[in-house]
Amino acid sequence: LQLATSAGVAATTVGCRRGHDASAGAPGDASRRLHERLLTLDTHLDTPANLASPGWDIMRRHDVRVDLSQVDYPRMVSGGLDGGFWAIYTPQGPRTPEGEARARDEALQTAVRIREMVASHPRRFEIALRADDAPAIAARGKRVVFLSIENGYPLGHDLTLLRTFYELGVRMVGPVHFLDNDLGDSSTDPKGKEWQGLSPLGKRFVAEANRLGMVLDASHASDDVLDQLIDLSKTPVILSHSGCKAVFDHPRNVDDDRLRRLAASGGVIQLNSLGDYLIASTKDPLRKQAVEQLMARYGSWHELGPDARARFVRERRDIDGAYPAPRATLDDFMRHVFHALQVVGPDHVGIGADWDGGGGVVGLEDVGEIPRITERLLAAGYSEDDLAKIWSGNVLRILRAVEAAKPTAASADAAR
Amino acid sequence: LQLATSAGVAATTVGCRRGHDASAGAPGDASRRLHERLLTLDTHLDTPANLASPGWDIMRRHDVRVDLSQVDYPRMVSGGLDGGFWAIYTPQGPRTPEGEARARDEALQTAVRIREMVASHPRRFEIALRADDAPAIAARGKRVVFLSIENGYPLGHDLTLLRTFYELGVRMVGPVHFLDNDLGDSSTDPKGKEWQGLSPLGKRFVAEANRLGMVLDASHASDDVLDQLIDLSKTPVILSHSGCKAVFDHPRNVDDDRLRRLAASGGVIQLNSLGDYLIASTKDPLRKQAVEQLMARYGSWHELGPDARARFVRERRDIDGAYPAPRATLDDFMRHVFHALQVVGPDHVGIGADWDGGGGVVGLEDVGEIPRITERLLAAGYSEDDLAKIWSGNVLRILRAVEAAKPTAASADAAR
Repeated sequence: LQLATSAGVAATTVGCRRGHDASAGAPGDASRRLHERLLTLDTHLDTPANLASPGWDIMRRHDVRVDLSQVDYPRMVSGGLDGGFWAIYTPQGPRTPEGEARARDEALQTAVRIREMVASHPRRFEIALRADDAPAIAARGKRVVFLSIENGYPLGHDLTLLRTFYELGVRMVGPVHFLDNDLGDSSTDPKGKEWQGLSPLGKRFVAEANRLGMVLDASHASDDVLDQLIDLSKTPVILSHSGCKAVFDHPRNVDDDRLRRLAASGGVIQLNSLGDYLIASTKDPLRKQAVEQLMARYGSWHELGPDARARFVRERRDIDGAYPAPRATLDDFMRHVFHALQVVGPDHVGIGADWDGGGGVVGLEDVGEIPRITERLLAAGYSEDDLAKIWSGNVLRILRAVEAAKPTAASADAAR
Repeated sequence: LQLATSAGVAATTVGCRRGHDASAGAPGDASRRLHERLLTLDTHLDTPANLASPGWDIMRRHDVRVDLSQVDYPRMVSGGLDGGFWAIYTPQGPRTPEGEARARDEALQTAVRIREMVASHPRRFEIALRADDAPAIAARGKRVVFLSIENGYPLGHDLTLLRTFYELGVRMVGPVHFLDNDLGDSSTDPKGKEWQGLSPLGKRFVAEANRLGMVLDASHASDDVLDQLIDLSKTPVILSHSGCKAVFDHPRNVDDDRLRRLAASGGVIQLNSLGDYLIASTKDPLRKQAVEQLMARYGSWHELGPDARARFVRERRDIDGAYPAPRATLDDFMRHVFHALQVVGPDHVGIGADWDGGGGVVGLEDVGEIPRITERLLAAGYSEDDLAKIWSGNVLRILRAVEAAKPTAASADAAR
């Protein structure tokens, strides 16, 4: 999730559709129909942050132009998205016992909110705990809710909390977010590397995730952490929402050599649609200042009611008018997708568009428009079989590997 | 909760209705109608333990004679019970870091289960966080779900977890269960007193409960702990499910002097209907052995499906036939209620019948029969005003005192 941070909203340009618009118009019927047949999962949905927003209802159709939200039940149906990994995101805070306890509580609240969402709509959503649950839930006509953790900070120094979250349903976990923490280095900490990868605690965290049966997620982590996760983890690693450094050089993107190593170990990169990681963004200091002042005036986005959000979005659009900035397009996003496909092939690529966490580009504004991704892939000659892997087969393969590698009760006893 | 323990089920006699049956017959219409007017709360519902049982559904009417369960939505409606405190019960386990972490996770799961129950039936149940929520929820035609903690063991040595549970909705907490723990002494530990009341950690626990705004519950605690809670707590103390020692001398019951001290400090005793605490139970060693063998054969009660439960109950009834034992009656329960009323008056007495935790006597077998309590109170001359206090006014008065005593954000800052 990037949206709640000042850098995030500052980077998001609202409604300024520049560049070519080859992506305009409704996605083709063929790709929509294909979405009905395929199991489609996005590996990084930041939508849980909206569940606590006053007046926001997962069952109601919202308009991204009005409240910036990108995922709800009606739009998942429109876009043919069967589900995905719903992220328990916690911003990196003070690395103190009090900060860790606060983060633990916040993450638990988010987990409870996701579970309450599912409990509230038992005919629409269902928690998925194993890879095989996903197609079964989709076959029952429901949306698939895997849980994941973005930022291991809420674990503090108590790795038994990883089991707590596992028991609440979490099946994927990434150690860090924007800043280095006690588990390891972030790709974007302005202070640089603290651990040269994983910390000693972070290495135990990897072993514990393996033991429990959680997929390890290297998005947001430094290159060193990615390398060490590939080396240390007994199971393939995922980049749940990342991009290609060869297409645009940004710390949140991964270079081709690392992508090949990731693929060789069975892992997958899921492509992110967050504009700042796709193309060079504007550096206009006046624009930056205007956005920061706007955000300071409104405070925490997720505490704003619908009216305040609409006002915010209007003021945000005024800033885009006063200080225009280029905005990434579906073409830009697809350039990352196609590059990854060229480098590692359709067995190692998927989609994690960072919906509700900063994702979304011109031509791919919300989850209702994801058939456009499929349309582009079909036009480029990828087959239905390829698309089945890209839209869920690859991540479920990793999850099955994690399930298979999980020590049984008997072998765990023997190891004692 | 006592049911899940071997002592508990051993003590529960199924279907052996001995003694006089003055309580037989349907409760009078007058008391049922009165329940429609009154706000009725029970302060100790162990029903959350059933929420995880396979095939058990809070919305379905169950039969206590078939599956021993005593509370579900249809029976709450029949009995005119508006709600109460739904207990997060955790059995006392090893006082080790691993044991504490396990207990923490178990308690979190129970809290989530309660919240999922409410989320699943939003027109039938609603979480109550403040005293004023209770009448408002009842006025909306829903059942009131306060959360409480029975046994502070899941907190381990980390009192920040008390805030975690507060944020999940918990508004009442008792430090101990059957055995002494790191917070203080139990009334029933066969090893005797360990701390002579609260431990140093237990005293900080009291301060933290006061600070957060939780009612302190002395049921299961030793007399020393009760005394110290009355002295240390800034707010009145509750006995959420206890009895009168003057009526039957049992460690789970409280003597008259202590009841007077409790009342003088604004507290309340809520009377328990668990037979073993109401009258002398049988000591027949053959009966005890037969029950223990039965229980060992079936294992954890809450993991049994409906068929296994029904078989268990039948076998349990055979034991009652082979080794008859006296069973407490509604008269015995009312003797404790009337005694408490005589000693401390209707401002300091309420009902916490320990449903689904070992409660239930002949003539008061499940929550559907609670108008019989009201009927007896009316017959003894207690007024509707008295009944309003007994059925909810007293506990809500304590909760309001707790809310009023909670430091505001401003005063908390000033204290820093």
